[in-house]
Amino acid sequence: MSGNTIGRLFSVTTFGESHGPALGCIVDGCPPGLELAEADLQHDIDLRRSGKSHFVSQRREADAVRILSGVFEGRTTGAPIGLLIENSDARARDYDALKDRFRPGHADYTYQQKYGRRDHRGGGRSSARETVMRVAAGAIARKYLAQRLQLRIFGYLSQIGPIRLEPLQPAAAYENPFFCPDPQRLPELEQLLWDIRGAGDSLGARVTVCAEGVPPGLGEPVFDKLDADIAHAMMGINAVKAVEIGDGVAVVAQRGSEHRDELTPAGFASNHAGGMLGGISSGQSILVHLSFKPTSSIQLPGRTIDLSGRPVEVVTTGRHDPCVGLRATPIAEAMLAIVLMDHYLRQRAQNGDVVSATPDITRRAVDAGG
Amino acid sequence: MSGNTIGRLFSVTTFGESHGPALGCIVDGCPPGLELAEADLQHDIDLRRSGKSHFVSQRREADAVRILSGVFEGRTTGAPIGLLIENSDARARDYDALKDRFRPGHADYTYQQKYGRRDHRGGGRSSARETVMRVAAGAIARKYLAQRLQLRIFGYLSQIGPIRLEPLQPAAAYENPFFCPDPQRLPELEQLLWDIRGAGDSLGARVTVCAEGVPPGLGEPVFDKLDADIAHAMMGINAVKAVEIGDGVAVVAQRGSEHRDELTPAGFASNHAGGMLGGISSGQSILVHLSFKPTSSIQLPGRTIDLSGRPVEVVTTGRHDPCVGLRATPIAEAMLAIVLMDHYLRQRAQNGDVVSATPDITRRAVDAGG
Amino acid sequence: MSGNTIGRLFSVTTFGESHGPALGCIVDGCPPGLELAEADLQHDIDLRRSGKSHFVSQRREADAVRILSGVFEGRTTGAPIGLLIENSDARARDYDALKDRFRPGHADYTYQQKYGRRDHRGGGRSSARETVMRVAAGAIARKYLAQRLQLRIFGYLSQIGPIRLEPLQPAAAYENPFFCPDPQRLPELEQLLWDIRGAGDSLGARVTVCAEGVPPGLGEPVFDKLDADIAHAMMGINAVKAVEIGDGVAVVAQRGSEHRDELTPAGFASNHAGGMLGGISSGQSILVHLSFKPTSSIQLPGRTIDLSGRPVEVVTTGRHDPCVGLRATPIAEAMLAIVLMDHYLRQRAQNGDVVSATPDITRRAVDAGG
Amino acid sequence: MSGNTIGRLFSVTTFGESHGPALGCIVDGCPPGLELAEADLQHDIDLRRSGKSHFVSQRREADAVRILSGVFEGRTTGAPIGLLIENSDARARDYDALKDRFRPGHADYTYQQKYGRRDHRGGGRSSARETVMRVAAGAIARKYLAQRLQLRIFGYLSQIGPIRLEPLQPAAAYENPFFCPDPQRLPELEQLLWDIRGAGDSLGARVTVCAEGVPPGLGEPVFDKLDADIAHAMMGINAVKAVEIGDGVAVVAQRGSEHRDELTPAGFASNHAGGMLGGISSGQSILVHLSFKPTSSIQLPGRTIDLSGRPVEVVTTGRHDPCVGLRATPIAEAMLAIVLMDHYLRQRAQNGDVVSATPDITRRAVDAGG
Repeated sequence: MSGNTIGRLFSVTTFGESHGPALGCIVDGCPPGLELAEADLQHDIDLRRSGKSHFVSQRREADAVRILSGVFEGRTTGAPIGLLIENSDARARDYDALKDRFRPGHADYTYQQKYGRRDHRGGGRSSARETVMRVAAGAIARKYLAQRLQLRIFGYLSQIGPIRLEPLQPAAAYENPFFCPDPQRLPELEQLLWDIRGAGDSLGARVTVCAEGVPPGLGEPVFDKLDADIAHAMMGINAVKAVEIGDGVAVVAQRGSEHRDELTPAGFASNHAGGMLGGISSGQSILVHLSFKPTSSIQLPGRTIDLSGRPVEVVTTGRHDPCVGLRATPIAEAMLAIVLMDHYLRQRAQNGDVVSATPDITRRAVDAGG
Repeated sequence: MSGNTIGRLFSVTTFGESHGPALGCIVDGCPPGLELAEADLQHDIDLRRSGKSHFVSQRREADAVRILSGVFEGRTTGAPIGLLIENSDARARDYDALKDRFRPGHADYTYQQKYGRRDHRGGGRSSARETVMRVAAGAIARKYLAQRLQLRIFGYLSQIGPIRLEPLQPAAAYENPFFCPDPQRLPELEQLLWDIRGAGDSLGARVTVCAEGVPPGLGEPVFDKLDADIAHAMMGINAVKAVEIGDGVAVVAQRGSEHRDELTPAGFASNHAGGMLGGISSGQSILVHLSFKPTSSIQLPGRTIDLSGRPVEVVTTGRHDPCVGLRATPIAEAMLAIVLMDHYLRQRAQNGDVVSATPDITRRAVDAGG
Repeated sequence: MSGNTIGRLFSVTTFGESHGPALGCIVDGCPPGLELAEADLQHDIDLRRSGKSHFVSQRREADAVRILSGVFEGRTTGAPIGLLIENSDARARDYDALKDRFRPGHADYTYQQKYGRRDHRGGGRSSARETVMRVAAGAIARKYLAQRLQLRIFGYLSQIGPIRLEPLQPAAAYENPFFCPDPQRLPELEQLLWDIRGAGDSLGARVTVCAEGVPPGLGEPVFDKLDADIAHAMMGINAVKAVEIGDGVAVVAQRGSEHRDELTPAGFASNHAGGMLGGISSGQSILVHLSFKPTSSIQLPGRTIDLSGRPVEVVTTGRHDPCVGLRATPIAEAMLAIVLMDHYLRQRAQNGDVVSATPDITRRAVDAGG
Repeated sequence: MSGNTIGRLFSVTTFGESHGPALGCIVDGCPPGLELAEADLQHDIDLRRSGKSHFVSQRREADAVRILSGVFEGRTTGAPIGLLIENSDARARDYDALKDRFRPGHADYTYQQKYGRRDHRGGGRSSARETVMRVAAGAIARKYLAQRLQLRIFGYLSQIGPIRLEPLQPAAAYENPFFCPDPQRLPELEQLLWDIRGAGDSLGARVTVCAEGVPPGLGEPVFDKLDADIAHAMMGINAVKAVEIGDGVAVVAQRGSEHRDELTPAGFASNHAGGMLGGISSGQSILVHLSFKPTSSIQLPGRTIDLSGRPVEVVTTGRHDPCVGLRATPIAEAMLAIVLMDHYLRQRAQNGDVVSATPDITRRAVDAGG
């Protein structure tokens, strides 16, 4: 395997290039009996899809997903689920100018060095379009987790360039094209984006993802800590340069007395840890933050080299977002769903019959609240 | 597997509890013909070992590692390498008071919920002592990479609490017990540690690890990006709450024109990316930053619950570091070595006969410099 | 993963049910630069395809395979190769009678107990049709091995019911619908099949597969011996009940002096071992024999139970071969190609730079012969 | 990984050479709460151990196994279980004569070609001694399966050279050094062994292994069929040249009406399949047969080559069994236990909450019989 599979027990293997005939994936290990239809996947795919605002690249495909196997009479059978999206709007000619030169900040040069060749059309396999299959697969995990565990995953844009956003209304994030959790700041955000586009430049962003209702006990203690597998999944999203759990980089300046989350019979007194201790879920909400670099495709000319190593100039044309983090929220949610699903099955395999003498203090809190 | 193995082709599987009879590991997949002796591993183990200063916990064992297999007449044979360190100074009684109560910030509660039982002595499997085998295994990877690729890995403490440290003399990091890369600031650092110990509290820290001489082409483009596997390896170290690559969280506030590293025939013009593009090494130096939370075991009493869920108070006694990040540098280096070694073998498997028409601009730079 | 993937480095993941919308697979890890077109796969698929004689079930689809990714400008890129065959002739109604009762000798009952439900149409995922994607993926491995190593894989029917067949003309096996390597015995074989079909019954068969030109050194010494991985791949083909390497079950009655293959500077003096020693290829031809049980779907009524456990009678109607082994040769060849390809990459990963002081005695023999 | 690990969820990784310092393994994924002591493992190890008769090689070590981790207060904790056996009777000098020449039928030549070097002492990693750790790990699986599922595994010698043995008293197999299930034929068997030893030659053997009480539903339908994984595990035992399931090679000459096992409410009417259908356990007894080649180390001189490829003669001296299959029964039992344990956990992971409307006809039979 060359790294196109994620997950041990709930495993997702993807294929497809930006401008090839189709994108697809195989989801293996899904428990049988889950009600599943194409509409379940399409909802998340549409959230991720381009074309929702002026600021995400204008690709006009419907991105209609087909379920090709593993579902019979409306329910999963336990067999692998084949998914397919045909590429219909593949304007490969836009990219001819880039055939022989490497775009700075892109994978062009490294693909060339690794494989000795590359499909240059729209980034080929390194295109952000690759993530559509992650979203489709994640939707299956998400539905299972919601139905079986009442586990809920959500995310939002927590920073873009200089603007930090508080999740005042997390649900509102799904009602605007930027996944902004504070609708009052939308005008400010739009202005920033018009400005950066006007300058032919791009911006970085921070996205936050949360999971509520995670049972305690998910995650393996040493190398495959739950946070380690989350970090792997998130750092594997294009353009991510940092993954933080809970308080993240802020812990460097904290004291132990400030950071440690005390336990009480009514739950934890705080959640600096972000929902995991020793690599295992504690029952608290899982909190993950991703830092996205600014889009590398910008309209300001830059220096680069061509295939034979000679210096040339490069300017990006074609469809490009001024901020790649803008549509990353559904992707990050999907990756979190896949990791949690995989660890739920791993936990059931080894510890399916464990009974702990200690009550689940976080569930008790939930029950009290309900 | 319950997550005690890391690496696909160069794979490391560990076992052992803090206060059990021994710690061990099996390194599978090492190429044959590498000169290897116990002294090669002992050097790195000793760097990591406790007892080097007043500020790391006082365990008096020699931590002498034995090579039990896979080496014949001084060279690796290609067979799995079994490593063993016997625990000789296991004062388990120190921990009796903690048998029935969960230390905040530790894995006690989550182990109990996951497995229904736990080895409470010194944290059992969740002890920082588990990392000694990572260091031993990493030393093998490191030696191979150094000999075959002239690849060099080094690290240092880049921040502790409020003190940020610049790598003015990276080599100096190995000459003081804090891995501080700026010897002039040692007195300041010692004072901070005396103060925090006096307060019965602890501090967070940031560690930076680098790899120089990495060939371009390592890493798989989608889920197993080189940065994703590095993030997995690093986030799997106890107490790590954030992993950053290159400019890390700072990219959120950057512009594309500022972040993108332009290419020239003489090399990249900058290294904001931290040595990887699209998940594949570019030939530049790899830069990784880890944020360690403050030690959870502090002498200030805290609230917690006991095995049956009743509220109790906990105070830590026994051996504990005021800053867990202080001895993390060799561990982080070892994890980076393991990941790079694994990807070097993965790259050779699939692309062993690739020839690229494009010159390696980073090597050219190196050659020019030498 | 639920077992729908085979191979560590050259890995094949399949999906699809007999009467679902499509069958597909993802081949990950293929080296870049291999010339590849759909015609390369179609050749092997057509060999396997039904409809070639009166004695294999009459499904009329073209089984046209599409390459959806991983190939650009006629060569593999190193990205995963997505393959798809749409099901066009899916007469699911034929199977309605079997919806509520379990066919003896089939996977119906075990799927029901494992998953609590099943896609009963034509066996669903347990259909022999599942193997078409193995053949497609195997064709890629085969082409690579042929081009890079001059490795050649071929097979033939070595027994059907009471008739044992000698490989007098191995190449002739591809010129008749039974893969019979002795054309003179075709009339005898046809008569046997008319007789068994007339009786409404079915027959077992033995298939032999060989690989010539395998380099010495493939295979891992302990659990993943080359023969162990071949056994895994072959026993995973529907209806296989025995896998033999070299002399196979005959070794039980042999003496050591008879079995051991002596070494001479001009090659091995014999090949009782079937091309592997200690789990590693020796450079001799690999010889594998598979025993296929007789088709379970026969026209003689049999006893079974229905979904709720009550006794009922079952008679098979619909398309069925009187001997499932008849079209197994291309499948077995494909599985051998996949295993050898995977181990070639594994060998290159760990031992890519090994030089042995000992000459390859089998190659020397080949050279002498050429 | 270089193939020294078996099992996905219950995974066993081994190390150690015949004449190195020690043999060891790590068992990862064992459920917590299982009572486990060294004596549990020692029982099976002693069964396998050499020195029990005149016909198995005379190595005098106690083979005392130590549990180094994963067990606390007499029960497994869910952490990896480290096992170690020190080599105390390693007479390496016996093997000096073989340093420069390759024994026919052994892995000497293939190791040399694969790795460019080898530990020649007693076969190094390719020694039959490697299997002791399989037996130790298998004992853990066996105990868990027995306690949780009342699953029972047993085996016996079913043929040696020309003598076929019927399992008239399977339990008697554990009361003689040959695992012979028909005590009346022991004199005949001893005579055969004296004769073959007198001739300086060796014999092949067949071993049969069974599992009773296997729940229906274990095994994955396509590549990781339960029989495929059993074949992999068994063919990975030194000297095995064929693996048969149920009727095995005899199916070639059977008719469908004879082979198919009809279902009745009181159970299956026969067990030609050997306990699996479509790769999934049916609830019937699992039956596996292994064919072992005759020991390659014999006292009759043979032709071979030396390290530089020149023709030389070889005669084996030192400790050697006249029939390697004689002590294989506990090894085969252990491998079956490991595979079943792994698939039990895999089944629980994906299908832990499945309820089938169809009764388990085999259990009903068992209940009726009890």
